Amino acid sequence: MSEATGSREFFTARTVSEALAGFRPARRSAVERVPLAAALHRVPAAAVASPSPLPGFVRSTVDGYAVRAADTYGASEGLPSYLDLRGAVRMGAAPDVTVTPGACVAMPTGGVLPEGADAVVMVEYTAATMPGTIEITRPVAPGGGVVRADEDVAAGAALVPAGRPLRAPDLGLLAAAGVTDVAVHARPRVAIISTGDEVVPSSTVDLGPGQVRDATAPALAALVLDAGGDPVQAGIVDDEPGALTDRLSEVLADADLVVVSAGSSVGARDETAGAVAAVGEIWCHGLAIKPGKPTLLADCGGVPLIGLPGNPLSALVVFGQIGVPLLWRLSGCDTPPPLPVTRARLSRDLASAAGRLDVIQVTLADGVAEPLFGPSALLSVLARADGYVVIPEPATGLPAGTEVDVIGHR
Amino acid sequence: MSEATGSREFFTARTVSEALAGFRPARRSAVERVPLAAALHRVPAAAVASPSPLPGFVRSTVDGYAVRAADTYGASEGLPSYLDLRGAVRMGAAPDVTVTPGACVAMPTGGVLPEGADAVVMVEYTAATMPGTIEITRPVAPGGGVVRADEDVAAGAALVPAGRPLRAPDLGLLAAAGVTDVAVHARPRVAIISTGDEVVPSSTVDLGPGQVRDATAPALAALVLDAGGDPVQAGIVDDEPGALTDRLSEVLADADLVVVSAGSSVGARDETAGAVAAVGEIWCHGLAIKPGKPTLLADCGGVPLIGLPGNPLSALVVFGQIGVPLLWRLSGCDTPPPLPVTRARLSRDLASAAGRLDVIQVTLADGVAEPLFGPSALLSVLARADGYVVIPEPATGLPAGTEVDVIGHR
Repeated sequence: MSEATGSREFFTARTVSEALAGFRPARRSAVERVPLAAALHRVPAAAVASPSPLPGFVRSTVDGYAVRAADTYGASEGLPSYLDLRGAVRMGAAPDVTVTPGACVAMPTGGVLPEGADAVVMVEYTAATMPGTIEITRPVAPGGGVVRADEDVAAGAALVPAGRPLRAPDLGLLAAAGVTDVAVHARPRVAIISTGDEVVPSSTVDLGPGQVRDATAPALAALVLDAGGDPVQAGIVDDEPGALTDRLSEVLADADLVVVSAGSSVGARDETAGAVAAVGEIWCHGLAIKPGKPTLLADCGGVPLIGLPGNPLSALVVFGQIGVPLLWRLSGCDTPPPLPVTRARLSRDLASAAGRLDVIQVTLADGVAEPLFGPSALLSVLARADGYVVIPEPATGLPAGTEVDVIGHR
Repeated sequence: MSEATGSREFFTARTVSEALAGFRPARRSAVERVPLAAALHRVPAAAVASPSPLPGFVRSTVDGYAVRAADTYGASEGLPSYLDLRGAVRMGAAPDVTVTPGACVAMPTGGVLPEGADAVVMVEYTAATMPGTIEITRPVAPGGGVVRADEDVAAGAALVPAGRPLRAPDLGLLAAAGVTDVAVHARPRVAIISTGDEVVPSSTVDLGPGQVRDATAPALAALVLDAGGDPVQAGIVDDEPGALTDRLSEVLADADLVVVSAGSSVGARDETAGAVAAVGEIWCHGLAIKPGKPTLLADCGGVPLIGLPGNPLSALVVFGQIGVPLLWRLSGCDTPPPLPVTRARLSRDLASAAGRLDVIQVTLADGVAEPLFGPSALLSVLARADGYVVIPEPATGLPAGTEVDVIGHR
């Protein structure tokens, strides 16, 4: 364990900004094809090109009459144009009439523009006063009331870009274009290891003296799911020398990211650093974030590893700030999607140290963010919070009344 | 179909505010028990009480020495207190020593406070200069350096409230308290019906003239999933009289919410209104929202129904404004979780009508929101948008430069 002590001395703390800019593994999760119905929030590995133009035909965007635009020039309420009604276009079918000069055809919204026509007059600017004749009371320009066959998407154009998680409208557009499956990055596999002699599985009914159920692992799994990852519960490792190194070697074979929630004692923390040093290269040990200072980041042969602080609140805060962006990056997305935010005013002054990122849990009521204080070891603080406020690294604090973004816990 | 025409004439448009305040079905989805690992974002049907206090024992929050606080009073760097070291507490185990006057015991963070001690002095304020003796250089008050056995949660206190979707930290707290499953509202079943003679399944490879693949249904399914619902694809119904009424009767037997995306033609829209009037009571036909005016809301024997406009963009906008809050309410949550928001400045003036809610798709770059215009029938507008800006009902527009919340498409 001399290595552990050694590494603690050797590595200085980094800031969160430094970690986000500098701890950027090249690794990306594998690429797999998934059906469209399973592609929500998945990240395309490449832009998806449209196999054909959309809508694919000149399509009416209004209910009205297909015309030759020139036949409507000069039409007005006082002096309408009169056109011969030659029939009607049916939805989802080829028109069986053509529009010759002086003629028109009834058009439903979404219908195919018949041959000979170059515009659709809205029904509001027409009247059917005599059988077989339509009065036009307003002119329409060529192309009016229709969309071109490739106006929505040209053939070969990108329907969705690479690297941005797919959203509901994307799935609609892909479906419209006839795309039935997409090549996306696999959900990154995140191995979650808990350590600490006091930690027992959360399924444990009766606790022994000093035992605590594992709270961090189930909460981390939820954060991983929310960030598009696939959490793999890799169990609890006790503080026995070598046990963590062995477990790390096992999970590294099949993980895109490894998260170790350290035991809370100094012994367990040293154990973690020593074990990690045996399987990878420690990038930083200590992060300028509160809560969350005893964080460790390492590169284990290309697989990033995050050593989280022992107390669950700190662990979840650090994972949110460091692990979530990393997870998106592993799945091919360099810009994580925006967070749920509510704007509010601080109820009181908040102190911070320059160069340190502070994450303050708050409750929200009537536009006021009320900080929740108390020992940072209390999980109930997190569960009671409506969200959190971040005090940026350069700031030395925020005065009461400051308008802040409260980032919601999802 | 005279009913259809009748209902279109009869019902006046409502505002979105009126719909949100007035169209509030009493229905809630059934209650089911799910294991904790499947409970993320689910809505508890009742508050969950803690079966026991947390952490359950007087727990050290620091690394240091368990002491009787009175033995440290007056201690300073210049004049330390000297205490006999009687042993160490091990993690996850009952202490096998007691702290008598003048004595101390080494404590790891998270350890059980031994009998006789009432505080823990942080290791930073101690020195081990002679074997068997610890120097204390700063006094500690009773209760210092520890949390009470019920400080996180008292036995019987609520761990999580009813009606608020469970978030990652909640799962951690529930796990810590030994809760292994939770009674939550079932995901509301949302039957999605598409109508329109021109609409064909999105799996269709070769389109006939005038046909379009169903884009709305897959996109709606994604919005339903995001809002905690269970989408049930109920297929495409053609514009044949009676066909929609029959399908509605079938799906109403087993749905918490029914969504009908109307065909785009006026004929298909009339068909929808007529069919809905045959199975329920129309609450409004026409909504003061742009895009999305031809929206229909109905109560079908306690099951709410939303008739969406024919064009996919309008349909998705209306479902986001009306359907999503309704869906949360059906699952027992009256306050939907906050939305992903980015603040930005408008690049140009936006017009609106007072009393109407306008939803404008925008792209985002460098803190500027650039509205995307174009025929509202274009799905690609939605897929290109980074999010949308809402112009509230009372406003007649927003000038360029206004700071707005851009709500992200998830």
